Amino acid sequence: MDLKRYRVGKKIKLGNLPTDDTGKLNREDSEAETLEIGLELAKLQDRLYAESKQSLLVVLQARDAGGKDGTVKHVFELINPQGVIVTNFKVPNEEDLKHDFLWRIHPHTPAAGMIAVFNRSYYEDVLVTRVHELIGDQEAKRRFEHIRNFEALLADRGTRILKLYLHVSAEEQRQRLQERLDDPEKNWKFNPADLKERGRWDEYTRVYEDALSATSTDDAPWYVIPADHKWYRNRVVAQLLLETLRDMNPQYPEAAFDLTNVAVGAI
Amino acid sequence: MDLKRYRVGKKIKLGNLPTDDTGKLNREDSEAETLEIGLELAKLQDRLYAESKQSLLVVLQARDAGGKDGTVKHVFELINPQGVIVTNFKVPNEEDLKHDFLWRIHPHTPAAGMIAVFNRSYYEDVLVTRVHELIGDQEAKRRFEHIRNFEALLADRGTRILKLYLHVSAEEQRQRLQERLDDPEKNWKFNPADLKERGRWDEYTRVYEDALSATSTDDAPWYVIPADHKWYRNRVVAQLLLETLRDMNPQYPEAAFDLTNVAVGAI
Repeated sequence: MDLKRYRVGKKIKLGNLPTDDTGKLNREDSEAETLEIGLELAKLQDRLYAESKQSLLVVLQARDAGGKDGTVKHVFELINPQGVIVTNFKVPNEEDLKHDFLWRIHPHTPAAGMIAVFNRSYYEDVLVTRVHELIGDQEAKRRFEHIRNFEALLADRGTRILKLYLHVSAEEQRQRLQERLDDPEKNWKFNPADLKERGRWDEYTRVYEDALSATSTDDAPWYVIPADHKWYRNRVVAQLLLETLRDMNPQYPEAAFDLTNVAVGAI
Repeated sequence: MDLKRYRVGKKIKLGNLPTDDTGKLNREDSEAETLEIGLELAKLQDRLYAESKQSLLVVLQARDAGGKDGTVKHVFELINPQGVIVTNFKVPNEEDLKHDFLWRIHPHTPAAGMIAVFNRSYYEDVLVTRVHELIGDQEAKRRFEHIRNFEALLADRGTRILKLYLHVSAEEQRQRLQERLDDPEKNWKFNPADLKERGRWDEYTRVYEDALSATSTDDAPWYVIPADHKWYRNRVVAQLLLETLRDMNPQYPEAAFDLTNVAVGAI
């Protein structure tokens, strides 16, 4: 599976990137493979935790109904919850707004040995704020710089950063939002404000393109994940995690004392 | 009082900067003036708090017995404690060390309307760590860059940053440490480790010169405060605070509603 093709290099146009790719895989095999990958992810996470030197930060961004919650549920539940902390970033509160936009984020960055998942993130501060004209282009540029610097700080301490934009088509979003209206069990997920944001589709496209292009670095690359097919999205995210953790190559530490001739005796 | 001469511009040599300057002032007048300044500081702090847009961060660094605690006590107690938060940064704990060196710092940066005082700070991570060879020159350089970026992030949100190195001579330090040994009421302040650090005087001089030179920026200038005379040190710090707050020029916000013809009636 070639994941490089989903990686954001220079200036991107989301319209040119596939939302409905399935990599010529079939659903059934792919779902089985995702579970297989899960077993290896669990092993690698165990080594990461034991080693306690490196950490992994996964940033999840998407439009409404883009599949962030589903990705957390179906991919990250394959890993020991003790080693994974998911943080949902909602609208900043009054106290948050009295500080720089990374102030409420920093405490949630992963400690050595841990995997942190950000369901939405500091990227909202250069996305929704821009569409709603709370900040202008100049301020957005400054924030891109602050974000790159912040991510470099984390990287220098041994944090790998993986940033995923779950890419759905307008038609797929329409169907998912409609489902939230039609299915009583999904009604609670429906938010009338989502329709208003949907009306700003092109504006979101523009600010996403700008943010992803400006902040995809070697330290912290962005991937645009085809996300119309949930099973394929899960497969790709799992594979990305797997390759990242393999590359980090965490090792069990050596025993802190000499274990020769040590035995646990009967009582 | 010309404070610019204490400001760190380019590469400094601490040996060329005075520790015993008194600016031709006499002690008695100067102490009265410090109290006068305190009254104006209190007024400006009140405006800063009411305005709730800008904030002030004061970083205090010094060698052992350099006068950090005394400065906090004699200068900042002139201001309403509700508007000032002093944070003492001690040796990082196990959890701190699992994160980047600014992780434990960021939560303590001042909210809009507030004054934060850091008694020791993230600068220890490029000072004591360097003298004790926990980090090398290359890592120190990276950290200088992270510090400059971090301070720029705070500055962009409206935080003024004032960094003060309290500059004492080796002889003055000797006397103060000796006093801690001789005076039973000061015994508790004496730490045998301080003598060891004192033995590394020249190494500390070198890393301080390096750190101050590398991180004195327009956003966040360093000042080398002559600190052999406590009364003069207090006078200079108070004056610096005064000029900084005056320059920030905080304003009481306008009433949020029309106050014409509003009166508080008898009951």
